[in-house]
Amino acid sequence: MTEQKATNVHWHEGDINRAERAELLKHRGATLWFTGLSGSGKSTIAVALEGVLYDAGVLCYRLDGDNIRLGINKNLGFSAEDRTENIRRVGEVSKLFVDAGMVVLSSFISPYREDRDRVRAIHEAAGMPFIEIFVDCSLDAAEERDPKGLYKKARAGEIKNFTGIDDPYEAPESPELHLHTDKQTLAEEVQAILELLRAQNIIA
Amino acid sequence: MTEQKATNVHWHEGDINRAERAELLKHRGATLWFTGLSGSGKSTIAVALEGVLYDAGVLCYRLDGDNIRLGINKNLGFSAEDRTENIRRVGEVSKLFVDAGMVVLSSFISPYREDRDRVRAIHEAAGMPFIEIFVDCSLDAAEERDPKGLYKKARAGEIKNFTGIDDPYEAPESPELHLHTDKQTLAEEVQAILELLRAQNIIA
Repeated sequence: MTEQKATNVHWHEGDINRAERAELLKHRGATLWFTGLSGSGKSTIAVALEGVLYDAGVLCYRLDGDNIRLGINKNLGFSAEDRTENIRRVGEVSKLFVDAGMVVLSSFISPYREDRDRVRAIHEAAGMPFIEIFVDCSLDAAEERDPKGLYKKARAGEIKNFTGIDDPYEAPESPELHLHTDKQTLAEEVQAILELLRAQNIIA
Repeated sequence: MTEQKATNVHWHEGDINRAERAELLKHRGATLWFTGLSGSGKSTIAVALEGVLYDAGVLCYRLDGDNIRLGINKNLGFSAEDRTENIRRVGEVSKLFVDAGMVVLSSFISPYREDRDRVRAIHEAAGMPFIEIFVDCSLDAAEERDPKGLYKKARAGEIKNFTGIDDPYEAPESPELHLHTDKQTLAEEVQAILELLRAQNIIA
């Protein structure tokens, strides 16, 4: 140890914790988990919600296939085993973001109930809010939208293990919020989520 | 679609991007990657820096063995292959945090140059700041500190593949910052990092 030269560094008492980060951000962290069929509207809602929350000064981040499948989970495919590991990792990343203080919008088909419940469990064990949002939409309506042309390919047999076609979707039994995107408007859906976030004291 | 009922939702134009999150937080995101031997002082510096940055209103998050090895990487061990996958995943998580706007303090021995350079590469390809901080300390000094008693166990053969004992540490060739924790004070080290963050326009 040499002589003390830097004298303008002031030390903070103890480690920075979740409550202190919430104080800095003026809101709490939470995982909003959007589950539902391909084409049900998960990403549409997450994008719209993110914009509204940003304008209210809330720091959000969206996790979805685009930034997960091409990054941390690029070594995973679509077998049942890989889907489970996919969701496990996304759940752990979401939890880190919540610990960091952010509102995470995780949009994944996440068809298996057990996988979603495991993500819920790790949040609850750490005292972190986990809000499961069932983005419900009839298969007919989702298939008619088919924004990425995936149902067409699945029906033609070009894609295997496609949720709703030749792979099951296990609907949530008691989600914090159940949206019906074939019956509600986007504004109503976003409004319902905002009310839930206020009721749970995530945002003011 | 039903009749428009919620009329108090105002839509944000387009997706929220990195620049907008930086505007909300009043600082840019960056990965600060602390590499060095076990006991070199990586975590001590990261904890001290986090406190100073928090007091300056900067949103930080620390990634280290504690929240990574017990979470997202709990299915990885310490073989060369698993160490590489460990660092790959931490690099991807760090990148997500930077994209979200945060200053990430990632403290990992990360002994292999190629693994660290891959983390650097994914940041640079995305236009995100990656700051490699070599927490240099002689093996003798690190072994004398031995805060977790790991060197003792490694010397006794109770731990295999221990960096510096029976596994190599490949020092960075051109890190953004080279600290010498067996010669500098903690205050000097933190000061040097703060100056670098200001010089790179990460913080004001």
